[in-house]
Amino acid sequence: MKSAVSSLVRSNNSLISRTLLYHSSKPISQSPFFLSNIPKNLFNQRYQKLQFSPNSTSIMASLSKSEQAREPPALPLPSPPLTKFKIGLCQLSVTPDKERNIKHVRKAIEEAAQKGAQLVLLPEIWNSPYSNDSFPVYAEDINAGGDASPSTAMLSEVASRLKITIVGGSIPERCGDKLYNTCCVFGTDGKLKAKHRKIHLFDIDIPGKITFMESKTLTAGETPTVVDTDVGRIGIGICYDIRFTELAMIYAARGAHLICYPGAFNMTTGPLHWELSQRARAMDNQLYVATCSPARDPGAGYVAWGHSTLVGPFGEVLASTEHEEDIIIAEIDYSILEQRRASLPFTKQRRGDLYKLVDIQRLNSH
Amino acid sequence: MKSAVSSLVRSNNSLISRTLLYHSSKPISQSPFFLSNIPKNLFNQRYQKLQFSPNSTSIMASLSKSEQAREPPALPLPSPPLTKFKIGLCQLSVTPDKERNIKHVRKAIEEAAQKGAQLVLLPEIWNSPYSNDSFPVYAEDINAGGDASPSTAMLSEVASRLKITIVGGSIPERCGDKLYNTCCVFGTDGKLKAKHRKIHLFDIDIPGKITFMESKTLTAGETPTVVDTDVGRIGIGICYDIRFTELAMIYAARGAHLICYPGAFNMTTGPLHWELSQRARAMDNQLYVATCSPARDPGAGYVAWGHSTLVGPFGEVLASTEHEEDIIIAEIDYSILEQRRASLPFTKQRRGDLYKLVDIQRLNSH
Repeated sequence: MKSAVSSLVRSNNSLISRTLLYHSSKPISQSPFFLSNIPKNLFNQRYQKLQFSPNSTSIMASLSKSEQAREPPALPLPSPPLTKFKIGLCQLSVTPDKERNIKHVRKAIEEAAQKGAQLVLLPEIWNSPYSNDSFPVYAEDINAGGDASPSTAMLSEVASRLKITIVGGSIPERCGDKLYNTCCVFGTDGKLKAKHRKIHLFDIDIPGKITFMESKTLTAGETPTVVDTDVGRIGIGICYDIRFTELAMIYAARGAHLICYPGAFNMTTGPLHWELSQRARAMDNQLYVATCSPARDPGAGYVAWGHSTLVGPFGEVLASTEHEEDIIIAEIDYSILEQRRASLPFTKQRRGDLYKLVDIQRLNSH
Repeated sequence: MKSAVSSLVRSNNSLISRTLLYHSSKPISQSPFFLSNIPKNLFNQRYQKLQFSPNSTSIMASLSKSEQAREPPALPLPSPPLTKFKIGLCQLSVTPDKERNIKHVRKAIEEAAQKGAQLVLLPEIWNSPYSNDSFPVYAEDINAGGDASPSTAMLSEVASRLKITIVGGSIPERCGDKLYNTCCVFGTDGKLKAKHRKIHLFDIDIPGKITFMESKTLTAGETPTVVDTDVGRIGIGICYDIRFTELAMIYAARGAHLICYPGAFNMTTGPLHWELSQRARAMDNQLYVATCSPARDPGAGYVAWGHSTLVGPFGEVLASTEHEEDIIIAEIDYSILEQRRASLPFTKQRRGDLYKLVDIQRLNSH
């Protein structure tokens, strides 16, 4: 038992070194996958190890095939700025009244923060009804900001006032002549740290049950999103993005502690796949998964399933709402991630000689 | 709704053509991924299309990025020799008496066949106690066959006598000075169609719960296994192999209708992950998943969780045992696969511009 743990530690060390070697042609700080708020001393420590490690060649030679199962090789799990904290999942009702929605969300964030949440997660499309007719009407120019985006202006103000991190669910975004389904992440200083545009548009057709084609109005995003925050490294997906296990796998390989999926599964796919998808992503990638849905409105054109959930790295449901409006607070403990990975050391056991997942943008950024 | 379906059909056609173009340097029949029992006329039909298609260049040009999410591109789902059939899952007790185990399994297969099963799935390590001490003692030389492998000789005899396909769980295999955890697949003619050696050895350590190191005695297999049978194209994994979503993904890309996992999860990981893993692999890859465990023996050194299960392509549990000895018969209907893939067209929606899963052996075989 001891030997397994210590050999994982050894492996992690070599992973760090490997990563550094990999980055040798370009300083890590220039990589888009290392955002600016990684502590400088951590950078220096790592970078010096790269520059001066006397064992570089032997480390290169000892690379196990398991590392080759990810291209580029997986990054080590970074030390998070804090290990334990509370997350708030705000499962809220959404109405056609945008101003009301903004006020309602502000109040919910304040309540979650007051209950101790240092990270607040909001639902998918919380400022607008979920429909192709509504998206163009409610869309905001997030890049312009200010009056052009009252929804994100509110998030920024609340984040800085309460000194919390907000993964801001999603809103319809207008950029030029295109519309996106976009999640904004605000740091404790109120600054926009990341913007994730839904990568996999929700185009499904289950006859007699649910048919929806987001691609009628929306454009798909072009970039996976991992962001370093005061509450750890977070990967972002929006709803249908959760269907694509590859996305969660590349987030894990980028060192994410947590993946947040604002999402609005429906009354067909909700009971079938919502919890299953979350638990699978968490179990397979050995990280936390948090989801947040709008509350269910049986009178709406699109009826959301609800059931916002926090899942731990063994795929265990740690907290979940029902379908009504609810704000739940749950604890995340990142120290468990290392424990779980020592118990089930998937990263050492993958068969890089048989399969390989390529993170194309990370590969091209080197 | 109609348009989505028809566009999927279009996409499938172009996938077929793409595959053929891909194979152009070598006849498909020489690929290890097309086993000999694919009907000849299907080969010819496809191959002629390759040779004489006037639209090759336009097809090449119209390749969507989603196809690039698998390298080589995913094969189309093949037409199975039959669409509907019954599978029998034989969750059986295993004792230290090998001769008894062989007789017991023979009787169970006969019972399943008598109840209509055309495919019978057996548990992991059914001829031997599950322990590193037992593996060398109970191991058989499968390649030598006959008296050197009474367990597989029995499977071959029963398969040909009853004219059924058997995915023979697993037994410890001796080959030279190495031991493997090996699954043999027998066709309706009693011939050994495929042999899968567990690729991912079960080395885990959950302190105070379960610690096991198969690698103490066993060697890992070197090859993923997909086999064409009279009951469809079947991917094989053994127990811990199910943990690695990449394996299921490459099986799906090789056109598997069904993945069979003989497995013996334990009393810790069983309740946590056994059903979750099966449902996740089925849902994400839109195929059937069948598992078969030994029955639980609370007095054994390694206590199996049981719960042998058939899961449909929406991740829905179709049939499951409890933990006692049981033989369950359940229906598989491959026509559902196309329906599910039309409803949720993942294969068209993957982002080949952002990620790519490489099946290294299939790639190298071209």
